[in-house]
Amino acid sequence: MSTPAFPASVYAARLERASALAAEAGLDAIIVGPGPDLQYLVGVEGDTIERLTALVIGAASAPTVVVPRMELAKVRSTAVGELHLAVADWVDGENPYELVSSAVGEASRVGVSDALPALHVIPLGTRLGLTLELATPVLRESRMIKDATEIGELRRAGEAIDRVHRRVPEWLRAGRTEREVAADIAEAIVAEGHRTVEFVIVGSGPNGADPHHEVSDRVIEDGDVVVVDIGGAVPSGYNSDSTRTYVVGTPDAAAAERIAVLVRAQQAAVDAARPGATASAVDAAARDVLADAGLGEAFLHRTGHGIGVSVHEEPYIAPGNDLVLREGMAFSIEPGIYFAGEWGARIEDIVVVTADGCERLNVAPHELTPVAGA
Amino acid sequence: MSTPAFPASVYAARLERASALAAEAGLDAIIVGPGPDLQYLVGVEGDTIERLTALVIGAASAPTVVVPRMELAKVRSTAVGELHLAVADWVDGENPYELVSSAVGEASRVGVSDALPALHVIPLGTRLGLTLELATPVLRESRMIKDATEIGELRRAGEAIDRVHRRVPEWLRAGRTEREVAADIAEAIVAEGHRTVEFVIVGSGPNGADPHHEVSDRVIEDGDVVVVDIGGAVPSGYNSDSTRTYVVGTPDAAAAERIAVLVRAQQAAVDAARPGATASAVDAAARDVLADAGLGEAFLHRTGHGIGVSVHEEPYIAPGNDLVLREGMAFSIEPGIYFAGEWGARIEDIVVVTADGCERLNVAPHELTPVAGA
Repeated sequence: MSTPAFPASVYAARLERASALAAEAGLDAIIVGPGPDLQYLVGVEGDTIERLTALVIGAASAPTVVVPRMELAKVRSTAVGELHLAVADWVDGENPYELVSSAVGEASRVGVSDALPALHVIPLGTRLGLTLELATPVLRESRMIKDATEIGELRRAGEAIDRVHRRVPEWLRAGRTEREVAADIAEAIVAEGHRTVEFVIVGSGPNGADPHHEVSDRVIEDGDVVVVDIGGAVPSGYNSDSTRTYVVGTPDAAAAERIAVLVRAQQAAVDAARPGATASAVDAAARDVLADAGLGEAFLHRTGHGIGVSVHEEPYIAPGNDLVLREGMAFSIEPGIYFAGEWGARIEDIVVVTADGCERLNVAPHELTPVAGA
Repeated sequence: MSTPAFPASVYAARLERASALAAEAGLDAIIVGPGPDLQYLVGVEGDTIERLTALVIGAASAPTVVVPRMELAKVRSTAVGELHLAVADWVDGENPYELVSSAVGEASRVGVSDALPALHVIPLGTRLGLTLELATPVLRESRMIKDATEIGELRRAGEAIDRVHRRVPEWLRAGRTEREVAADIAEAIVAEGHRTVEFVIVGSGPNGADPHHEVSDRVIEDGDVVVVDIGGAVPSGYNSDSTRTYVVGTPDAAAAERIAVLVRAQQAAVDAARPGATASAVDAAARDVLADAGLGEAFLHRTGHGIGVSVHEEPYIAPGNDLVLREGMAFSIEPGIYFAGEWGARIEDIVVVTADGCERLNVAPHELTPVAGA
């Protein structure tokens, strides 16, 4: 669990904005369970699953936190305490849904946070006698636009993960397993300034052809193309996420050529990211470069995802997403190409939309990076 | 992500049983998202949040897995592939809820797994035009009773965490911070045979009075009572969870006396755990010993929780839970006493209900364990 990153006034403003946006959306209340939304709103992620912790924000009333008594001290040590929010605590054997219902009051439309598990969504719907809605649109609007402080934290995270990528050649070499390399990288993620390691993907040779391969005991071989996709959260809870593609020894010429196209595709999407462009247009910019080179079928996923207090959040840079980009939006641009059974490659930066384009938060070299062979 | 722990036949049997139990409960289908239920049923936990992966089990039809194409290779490498389950894959821009709806077919009652986030629960309910229910009762029935293979895995996990507790005196001493001690313990959790570290709580002095304190930079002092609550998953995905209470140097006599009562309370609950007893009776056994000694108010939580492929699951050993214990149920017995601002203590073993009592899976010494002072 992280400690609040910002002064209480920041959280007070976020809570007020969430309440106003709920009202604007016609929701009488929103119920926020543990997860990134809670961290965003009060500076604490929350960490119980089966015992309900929930922040109830009414469109027209002060926020209330429903919390198991055993979590009370921890919750009070956050903005919840500093802002003197109303707290309704409960112990095992009591019914927390009653407390939420009291906090919600009379309501006809209520939203819940994305991460709230069915374990709580279903009984809450029953208790409130309502078909619950997603609070996503309300919270997304607030979370999606990063202010200067948040961008500062994302920049800090980006610099930290860039330092790790620059050190990857120290560890990545023929004869070691993916798992061994990943362990060294994980240690460096923390050493370079992250509080947590969120993920370490080392996909060597054919394993790189699976976009979500993590690590394995495969021994890295001479000539392997290796995808290294890594990230973590800095102490404030904001995340890094960056991918580079390496080659052990001398690359196969055909592979190197395809990866050069990928680097161009990634650059094209970065160039397309600016206020007024749609998310799908940024996606298409990368996709078109790959398609023109006959690599359209090799690109298996969307171009990117938003990032902040969670690694994946709005906006999603995907086909069909007509969302118009605005200054302050932060997201990944990470096209990849995958050849089943052979190899894969991906290049990923986080960018933040500026007044007239975007700022790249990852600047470690994008080209296929050679590391020592056997 | 873990690899399947057992032969495909084990998962085939679990899927069949889930389908039969769904039919028995009057559910037309259950939808299982990433999480422990999915790991239990097909041997893979799943790991996407915003992209839907779901196993659809009909009461009267063969299971279907809905999965993002980029996760396909990983899912196919599990029991899903070995059992030749139907797979419906999708790519970004397509609507996975349509695929789930097709797999469900005509239905009037559908259950979802506990862990499925609202992000998917709400649109699934809308697409199916149903008020979804929890699949918990169905899956609980199957997951709650551990077979011999599962008990073997829990035993292996228990032995591994016992080895870590026996080594705690190597690291826990005055002058070090909780965080430093926790880092050594985390390393040992893996070294002693776990695949993952699930949690490391080191609550020294006043921090021990918060049952869910994790770690801090507090420097451990001479005379501190220290709660060490640790666990991880062994390669098969089954979890350990054990707490011992340590004292740095010489304990305060009054504290030592209270902790001796706590050890007796824990033993009383272990003695009460047998087939036919209710969960609440086991809880009461510990609670009564503490209350008799005037420590009832200091016991802030339930006595225990089930354990298996998740750290917390059914059965919950709590006041008001009339569930009757049966052979094969596995859960923690972990009473604690907490004195705000001063200190806390907790003793926790995992037990498995046997034909005529229970087997303790943690046998490291239960008494207050002294470690070196300054």
